[in-house]
Amino acid sequence: MTERLSVEARASALRELSGWSELDGREAITRIFTFSDFNEAFGFMTRVALAAEKRDHHPEWRNVYRTVEIVLTTHDAGGVTLRDIELAGAIDAIAAAA
Amino acid sequence: MTERLSVEARASALRELSGWSELDGREAITRIFTFSDFNEAFGFMTRVALAAEKRDHHPEWRNVYRTVEIVLTTHDAGGVTLRDIELAGAIDAIAAAA
Repeated sequence: MTERLSVEARASALRELSGWSELDGREAITRIFTFSDFNEAFGFMTRVALAAEKRDHHPEWRNVYRTVEIVLTTHDAGGVTLRDIELAGAIDAIAAAA
Repeated sequence: MTERLSVEARASALRELSGWSELDGREAITRIFTFSDFNEAFGFMTRVALAAEKRDHHPEWRNVYRTVEIVLTTHDAGGVTLRDIELAGAIDAIAAAA
């Protein structure tokens, strides 16, 4: 889970996720979520915060009103690991349930 | 409350707030808050979210683990208004109570 993925493994994992892409200039994956208003956006963030805390693996994220931009990387590994891929999947499930 | 502050009024209001400064390149004010861990940082964000929603005036913000970077501006006014100054004061009170 905590080993940095190779370029190929990262690309392969990204193909399994919808809407996530490589972040320019950093070994990280990113996705932007858009909701109908701040209430929905922050509700989503709260559920993601709980999921992140449970995993002890946290997003870098930015919220402007109804958009939430998430960046995932594993600082200890210096790149993207399966922890990021797994959390991305959990985040997608939360967004889909919103 | 919703009128864009002049440079002088903005500077004067900032002197009343501790820790806030002008954002480079934009008419906005910014402050970075640091907590002991993600739990504390997100707890703070949740209280700020409620305060923002109540005012129908929302921050732009970024969270990386235990740090929260907040930017306040009033989009409709194209700059900083008393709504931002008031929200900044409310955010400081929340941070002080943490």
